Amino acid sequence: MSRQLVVGAAQLGPVARDEPRESVVARMLELLHAGAAAGCQLLVYPELALTSFFPRWDLAGDELDSFFETEMPGPATKALFDGAAELGVGFCLGYAELTPEGHRYNSQMLVARDGSVAATFRKVHLPGHEEPEPWRPFQHLERRYFEPGPAGFGVWRCFGGVVGMMICNDRRWPESYRVLGLQGVELILCGYNTPIHYPPDPGQDRLQGFHSALVMQSGAYQNGTWVVGVAKAGREEGAELLAESCIIAPSGEIVAQAATAGDELVVATVDLDRCAHYKDTVFDFQRYRMIEQYGLITSRRGAVPPPALDEE
Amino acid sequence: MSRQLVVGAAQLGPVARDEPRESVVARMLELLHAGAAAGCQLLVYPELALTSFFPRWDLAGDELDSFFETEMPGPATKALFDGAAELGVGFCLGYAELTPEGHRYNSQMLVARDGSVAATFRKVHLPGHEEPEPWRPFQHLERRYFEPGPAGFGVWRCFGGVVGMMICNDRRWPESYRVLGLQGVELILCGYNTPIHYPPDPGQDRLQGFHSALVMQSGAYQNGTWVVGVAKAGREEGAELLAESCIIAPSGEIVAQAATAGDELVVATVDLDRCAHYKDTVFDFQRYRMIEQYGLITSRRGAVPPPALDEE
Repeated sequence: MSRQLVVGAAQLGPVARDEPRESVVARMLELLHAGAAAGCQLLVYPELALTSFFPRWDLAGDELDSFFETEMPGPATKALFDGAAELGVGFCLGYAELTPEGHRYNSQMLVARDGSVAATFRKVHLPGHEEPEPWRPFQHLERRYFEPGPAGFGVWRCFGGVVGMMICNDRRWPESYRVLGLQGVELILCGYNTPIHYPPDPGQDRLQGFHSALVMQSGAYQNGTWVVGVAKAGREEGAELLAESCIIAPSGEIVAQAATAGDELVVATVDLDRCAHYKDTVFDFQRYRMIEQYGLITSRRGAVPPPALDEE
Repeated sequence: MSRQLVVGAAQLGPVARDEPRESVVARMLELLHAGAAAGCQLLVYPELALTSFFPRWDLAGDELDSFFETEMPGPATKALFDGAAELGVGFCLGYAELTPEGHRYNSQMLVARDGSVAATFRKVHLPGHEEPEPWRPFQHLERRYFEPGPAGFGVWRCFGGVVGMMICNDRRWPESYRVLGLQGVELILCGYNTPIHYPPDPGQDRLQGFHSALVMQSGAYQNGTWVVGVAKAGREEGAELLAESCIIAPSGEIVAQAATAGDELVVATVDLDRCAHYKDTVFDFQRYRMIEQYGLITSRRGAVPPPALDEE
C-alpha cells in the first residue's frame, strides 16, 4: 500500500480588516481547485485564515466577536467544505473559535476528503501580551483574546498516516514536536501569522525567516516527521508578515517553499514511509531517550539559574 | 562588569590508534598557546580528545582499558593543566573515564583558568549499539563501553556566566538543551566525534554537517544560549569524521566555523549578555512554557502511535 500523499501548502497573502469572509473563502477555493488540479489530497491553510490578524488591535465587544466563528462550517465557510467534498481534497484551516460555552480559542480544523470534520486542534502556546501596550506600533493580544487549548497536542490517523497539528508560536517550542513525536506523528500541519517586526527585541526582525525554518526543520528531524508550515503573508494593514511557507521532510530538509508573499500554492509529494528512516535509527526513542534525566522539563516552568557567586 | 568572554573551539584532526597521549597533548598545547595569543579565556577540545575514537573497534581487557584515563590530570595530561595555569586559559576536555569503582563514562572536564578542575560532565545519550555488528564497516560500541552519566545535565557558574556541558550525541536531543536552559545556561560546551558514514541508514551521510548544525543552532536559539561545538575531524583510521566545529550565538547564528578538517583554532567573542535577548522575550519560559501539556516527555520513553484503523 502506497504511503505517498500529495500535500499543498496554501499560503494566503494579506487579508484586509474589512475584507468579507466570502472574499477570503473565494481565494481559498481558488487554491483548492489549483490543488485538486495538481493532484493534492490535502491542502493546508494558514492560522486565522478567514480574517485579518486581529490580535494586532485592541478590540472588545461586538467588534472583537466579529472575528470569531461560532459554527464551522458556517454560512461563509460552507462553500469550502462543499468544495472539498466535491473535489475530494481534504484541508486544514485556522480560525478563531468562539464556543457555545463562551470559550475562545485559536483553532485549526482538519477536514477529510469527504468534507467531514476529522479533528480540531486549539493552539497551546499563546505568544504576545495580556494588556494593551500603547508603545508598540501594533499589538499582539493573543493572550488577551484566547485561552490556551486545554487538550494539548493530539494525533489522528487520517490521510494514510499519523497526523498532528500545531499553530504558529507552538512551532518554536521543541516540546510541541516531541509530544507529537511520542505519539508517532508522521505529518505535522502548522499555520502561522508571523509579524516580521518584533517590538520587544527588534534585533530579531532580520532573523524571522531563519528562525521559522530553524525550528520547523529541527522539529522535523528530531522526531522523524514531515512538517507543513503555512503563512498568512505580506503587508497586512501596515504590518509585514513572514511568507516562506514550506514543506519539510523528516530529514529536516525543505523540499518546497513559497516564492512570493501572496496567495500561492506550494506542492510536494510526502512519502510517509520516509519517517521510519529516522524514527527507527538515530531517533529510536525507546532505545535512546533518557527520560530519567528530563525531569525538569515537566516539573519546572521557568528557568532557575544557580545562585550568584559571592564576589571575592 | 563586562560579560564578554573570548572562546576558542580547538578542533583536532585525526588521532591515530598508536599515537601516544603525549603527542596529542603536545598538539593540544600548541592550540592552547595559539588561544592565549588570541586572547582566549577558554578553549574547548573535542570528545575523547586524547585517543583515537576507539568505539569503532571491538575491544576488551587491557586493550580496551588502554584508552581510558584513571586519573585526571594523569602523567600524560599534567602538561595541559600546567599550561592552562601558566597561560591563564581554562579548557574543556573530553576523555574516557575509568573510575576507582570501575565505572566507565564518556566524560568531559571543565578546567578553570588557574588549572583547577571546575566541573565534570558524563555523557547522557549514548549512541550506537551494545553488541558487535560485524556487517558494519566500523563499529560504534559506545553502549558497550560506557554507562550513561548518572548525574544528567548540570550547570556551573564560572567564566563569568552559567556554563553547561554535553557530549556529541547529547546535542541531537532537544531535551539536553532544555534541561540546561531551565537552569539558566548561557554557554554550552560540546565536543563530538561524528562519523560521516552512518551504517544503519547511509542516506543520512550527506546530511551529517547539516544535521549537526541544525540541532546546535536550534538548541541555542530555543534556549537563548551560546553553544560551542568542537569536532575531532578528518580521516581517522579509515573513518571520515565530521569537522565543522563552530561557535553559535543565542540567535542561532553560527558566528565562527572551522574551515579545515585538521587541528584548527576557531575564536569568537562571546557576549553572555546577548542571551537575555531571547530568555527575556520570546523564550521567557516562566511566562510562556505550557508544562501542563508536556507530560509525555518525561512519562513515556518510546513512541506509541495510535491504534491502526480497521481496513474498510
